Amino acid sequence: MDVLKELEEFRKKDIPYTRVLSSMCTLPHPIAVEAHKMFLNTNLGDPGIFRGTFELEKKLIKMIGEMLHNDIASGYICSGGTEANIQGIRAARNFMKKKNPNIVVPKTAHFSFEKIGDILRVEVRRAKVDEEYKVEVAEVENLVDDSTVAIVGIAGTTELGQIDPIVELSKLAEEKGIWMHVDAAFGGLVIPFMDDPYPFDFVNKGVKSITIDPHKMGMATIPAGGIIFRDQSYLKTLEVETPYLTSKTQYTLTGTRPGTGVASAYAVLKSLGYEGMKKVVKTCLKNTRALVDEMKALNFEPVIEPVMNVVAFKTEKADKIKEELYKREWVISTIRNPRAIRFVIMPHVSEETIKSFIEVFRKVLVEV
Amino acid sequence: MDVLKELEEFRKKDIPYTRVLSSMCTLPHPIAVEAHKMFLNTNLGDPGIFRGTFELEKKLIKMIGEMLHNDIASGYICSGGTEANIQGIRAARNFMKKKNPNIVVPKTAHFSFEKIGDILRVEVRRAKVDEEYKVEVAEVENLVDDSTVAIVGIAGTTELGQIDPIVELSKLAEEKGIWMHVDAAFGGLVIPFMDDPYPFDFVNKGVKSITIDPHKMGMATIPAGGIIFRDQSYLKTLEVETPYLTSKTQYTLTGTRPGTGVASAYAVLKSLGYEGMKKVVKTCLKNTRALVDEMKALNFEPVIEPVMNVVAFKTEKADKIKEELYKREWVISTIRNPRAIRFVIMPHVSEETIKSFIEVFRKVLVEV
Repeated sequence: MDVLKELEEFRKKDIPYTRVLSSMCTLPHPIAVEAHKMFLNTNLGDPGIFRGTFELEKKLIKMIGEMLHNDIASGYICSGGTEANIQGIRAARNFMKKKNPNIVVPKTAHFSFEKIGDILRVEVRRAKVDEEYKVEVAEVENLVDDSTVAIVGIAGTTELGQIDPIVELSKLAEEKGIWMHVDAAFGGLVIPFMDDPYPFDFVNKGVKSITIDPHKMGMATIPAGGIIFRDQSYLKTLEVETPYLTSKTQYTLTGTRPGTGVASAYAVLKSLGYEGMKKVVKTCLKNTRALVDEMKALNFEPVIEPVMNVVAFKTEKADKIKEELYKREWVISTIRNPRAIRFVIMPHVSEETIKSFIEVFRKVLVEV
Repeated sequence: MDVLKELEEFRKKDIPYTRVLSSMCTLPHPIAVEAHKMFLNTNLGDPGIFRGTFELEKKLIKMIGEMLHNDIASGYICSGGTEANIQGIRAARNFMKKKNPNIVVPKTAHFSFEKIGDILRVEVRRAKVDEEYKVEVAEVENLVDDSTVAIVGIAGTTELGQIDPIVELSKLAEEKGIWMHVDAAFGGLVIPFMDDPYPFDFVNKGVKSITIDPHKMGMATIPAGGIIFRDQSYLKTLEVETPYLTSKTQYTLTGTRPGTGVASAYAVLKSLGYEGMKKVVKTCLKNTRALVDEMKALNFEPVIEPVMNVVAFKTEKADKIKEELYKREWVISTIRNPRAIRFVIMPHVSEETIKSFIEVFRKVLVEV
């Protein structure tokens, strides 16, 4: 069999995005796909060869930095949120130079923080959240000690899309002289386009690094994560020498690194602009609201009123519901505390998709 | 200006591969590009959604495992050699459970091992090499102690394409009860296709993990690194729980992860097959030989007679030559010990390219 035909058979077994209500990734924007193809052969691992692509990355980082209220931001486009968070915490660890370092993160932080703790050999302390699932600042303060190298706040939690009190966390970090890292992998490209956006970014003086992923709400092609530092000096703590490249040092985690994420992220942000992104976010929020209304009509209560386009509904039958839907090739996810089913209403989730989903959901409810 | 036009302007500033003699990456094979496009929207971070792509990955890992003389190999396609080496060493560190862990690597190991030491908080001990730039096994033995969690051997060093005495290193690792990791990022897809291949892989009982990158000599699209373990149990040491995904645990370093590298690597290996790959490698070796002949005619001596398609030539003027060539938009690289100019003769480097290069090189020699 022809290899491309064989590949097609595998590809057909994937569930199409039109039935995925659980992912923080989405179909890339058509302009992202075009840009991606143009940069398919690029490798930012050697910026002396890929000079133009590297220049484009600097332009994109400046653009994202300015959106995050920082003209002198420094950073790069990486493999995704996990690498971005590793690099933020690694920079903090290297910068703070403590023995037996620990970090304080909200209980709601992404599971990858466990990975990060293991990789970087940093103790991960999880602080309690309040009834709105925002981290309690007093709890964070209790957990901080002389060995704490970073306080982490989340702008758009994975489970509920909640935003931690980053303003207060940043003040605490400043007071204590501790690095503050914001995980805005998801919310970083939602919040700036909402009405009356919460100040989660570099306007807070304590914030030294921010994770913000174009391949989530930025509709860029995978892989396109982002790690942005307050200025170049913070990035320096990550550098190693690179003897056989055209550059002298390397601050990235990976060596070879595609330029496709840079090109696709830039293409989307530049062509849509602020107004275009605002429209995308508005539609996602409207569709989230529509789902909430449908679910309320079916007697499901959201865990919290959605802050952005992530929402979960309480039910003891969460796992069973997820399984039954999966059998019908619809993908949702669950959270554990409280027991709930969870939805992410990405740009690929249309009003029609929600309607089709609710029809199937009603049938499933009868059976579980 | 139209954003795609703008991107094109940046892309034009990149130096085309036809003038790149320094990179271990190459133009992807045309079949790799086709496969890549087909899997552009896939995300292996959620294998329950991308079931077909995940199945394909398992098939590819089995194929690579068998090539490496191991029917039950386990592993995954990652962002590149650095992630693969991080994961190999991290697995060793977690498996061996030593206080103040160290690893022993050849002096010739890739610079990313410095990064890995920093990231994983593992001491990196560099063992001397002999006059052929192979690590001295006695030196490795001297550096090993009770806290050593891994011995690393290189199959295709970055600077010279040399192969360490992996058979002896593996025996040493077995004797001492230490994890052996082979960095075959480059050589892993060269050596198996050479006449009388050196036994660098799982035939050596001590070898627990191997880095092997399809986006180097496998002509896959970037990113496509590979980390392969002797069996599934070794991979287990990397797992964390993944509450809101369709899977229960995750052993990868990154979360979101493109399926493009899997598809493009599979497409190349499957369509070319053993004979096709042998032909590619043969051509690269022949062209390397052609370059050596041209250089010898110009009174340049190779640091070692090339083992594979990487070669360096001694000269005190290495940096100056590199700079002058770069001004003319030809990219070579240098090594520091001994002072030499270095070439990687990848599939994109044709006989004609070498001829054009030598013409420019002659002119540069007059000036430096």
